[in-house]
Amino acid sequence: MSTLEALCAHRLVPVVVVDDAADADPLAGALVAGGLPVVEVTFHTGAAPDAIRAMAARGDCLVGAGGVLDASEVDAAVTAGAAFVTSPGLSRAVVDRCLEHGVLTVPGTVTPTEVLAALELGLTTVRFFPAATSGGAAAVAALGAVFGSVSWIPVGGIGPANLDEYLDVPAVAAVGGSWMVPRDRVAAGDLETVQRLAAEAVAQVRRGRR
Amino acid sequence: MSTLEALCAHRLVPVVVVDDAADADPLAGALVAGGLPVVEVTFHTGAAPDAIRAMAARGDCLVGAGGVLDASEVDAAVTAGAAFVTSPGLSRAVVDRCLEHGVLTVPGTVTPTEVLAALELGLTTVRFFPAATSGGAAAVAALGAVFGSVSWIPVGGIGPANLDEYLDVPAVAAVGGSWMVPRDRVAAGDLETVQRLAAEAVAQVRRGRR
Amino acid sequence: MSTLEALCAHRLVPVVVVDDAADADPLAGALVAGGLPVVEVTFHTGAAPDAIRAMAARGDCLVGAGGVLDASEVDAAVTAGAAFVTSPGLSRAVVDRCLEHGVLTVPGTVTPTEVLAALELGLTTVRFFPAATSGGAAAVAALGAVFGSVSWIPVGGIGPANLDEYLDVPAVAAVGGSWMVPRDRVAAGDLETVQRLAAEAVAQVRRGRR
Repeated sequence: MSTLEALCAHRLVPVVVVDDAADADPLAGALVAGGLPVVEVTFHTGAAPDAIRAMAARGDCLVGAGGVLDASEVDAAVTAGAAFVTSPGLSRAVVDRCLEHGVLTVPGTVTPTEVLAALELGLTTVRFFPAATSGGAAAVAALGAVFGSVSWIPVGGIGPANLDEYLDVPAVAAVGGSWMVPRDRVAAGDLETVQRLAAEAVAQVRRGRR
Repeated sequence: MSTLEALCAHRLVPVVVVDDAADADPLAGALVAGGLPVVEVTFHTGAAPDAIRAMAARGDCLVGAGGVLDASEVDAAVTAGAAFVTSPGLSRAVVDRCLEHGVLTVPGTVTPTEVLAALELGLTTVRFFPAATSGGAAAVAALGAVFGSVSWIPVGGIGPANLDEYLDVPAVAAVGGSWMVPRDRVAAGDLETVQRLAAEAVAQVRRGRR
Repeated sequence: MSTLEALCAHRLVPVVVVDDAADADPLAGALVAGGLPVVEVTFHTGAAPDAIRAMAARGDCLVGAGGVLDASEVDAAVTAGAAFVTSPGLSRAVVDRCLEHGVLTVPGTVTPTEVLAALELGLTTVRFFPAATSGGAAAVAALGAVFGSVSWIPVGGIGPANLDEYLDVPAVAAVGGSWMVPRDRVAAGDLETVQRLAAEAVAQVRRGRR
């Protein structure tokens, strides 16, 4: 399985902000126990590199860095062990650096012009961020109809109430979100809640497949 | 009349997916009979080049290619006889190839930054796609207020129920859509329906002008 | 105080279309009397350069040019005395020319890809236009959460009824709008109304701070 296949295998990408690297290993354990061995660590906190390192060392889940804004952050994320790198938007500099490192990159694209730019860089899996305020699932469906070769990972403003709308769009490979890994629950060490939320999201995806 | 003037003359651009090139000639006939001698053939299907060839050979309607994603598709569309080329977004490579061929190109632009990029390439008529999920007619009106030299062709999520909203925006040159040429009606050879829908759309535009 | 600090000091940027340069000096006087010594003159009218010149000569308010679309308009705006230049979108040519002149430039960015492009040009204060049809305050909040270093000036479709929503977003530095300076009131010389609307907007910002 390629990294991209692993990233989308569960159709869910938990996006977590880690404030203390010591929370990272048990957090990953809770996600794995919940049936969701994938995590994107927002690369804004000082704890992010060590959190990625700790989670990647477990060997039982796919760990990436999110919200990466420039090439130097790509370097830091890859050094920490990130298996994939996401950006809120499409930056040529970020994409090029990821390609140099041979690491999967999933940039954000909202408009058709940005999708064309991604295609010209050889990328066919992109995020759609911020999803809820950029037209939502209907926008992804409209884009999916004209870009047959592109797969989408919508992120932003998605939760249990509207998850199905996005998963029902054929072009949607996976959905990202923080609702499975609330920052305050993670910081409080409340891993039971994280495991339960992850398991509920996995179950919701399975129900949608039937 | 220039190609651009012909494209916008009826303020409507039917956007059709043709699955069988044999449907193309009678389809164009139905549009012409309905008073709408303009058609954009989505360049995603294998039948598209032959469909464009057959329609262009009639000589009584303006035929273009839509959804063109790269320069090689521009070549194929122009070879088939497309009088204009549209793209969902703005790709420098697509625009440059169209300029080389001397064929009218109408790229999609959603944001002001993308409009500025179109202006820098010398283009002043652009699509707004996907229209309904990108802020709708109100968004085109807002853009029209700051880009006085730009004309718009909104496409995506438009039909009889909201056509007037778009046509009422002064900066809107024409509106594109598939509601006049439903794919299943075209594939079923139901050209009476196509002719009726085209005629109804033309009548709706005329009512709006009074 | 830097020009940027002065621009955002009141968290409001009145955006005015001036049809007659003779209206400019009393208009600026009304804004100053209303407690709002900041004004962005839309650079679309023939009167705009002289209006900027007259307002800048007063010395009691910060005057800029808005809706600037290319480098030659930057030159004209700076020659007229504009202390800042805004564009509806991000144009490399406009930004470069502003940097050459050493004048503050605030381009518009809507998508994360456009924000990344602004950051790569060294700009961290951007407009969000057209705000209301691009996802509104919720969109700015979503962008603010991933771009920690960026400050926003939303413009477009904002007025007293929704001003607070935007001001409540931590990443919002100021809000632009024409509701304080209605074009017809300015053209009619009704400066009492302008002064009252400016004072009301200033009071609304103050209430929000409590």
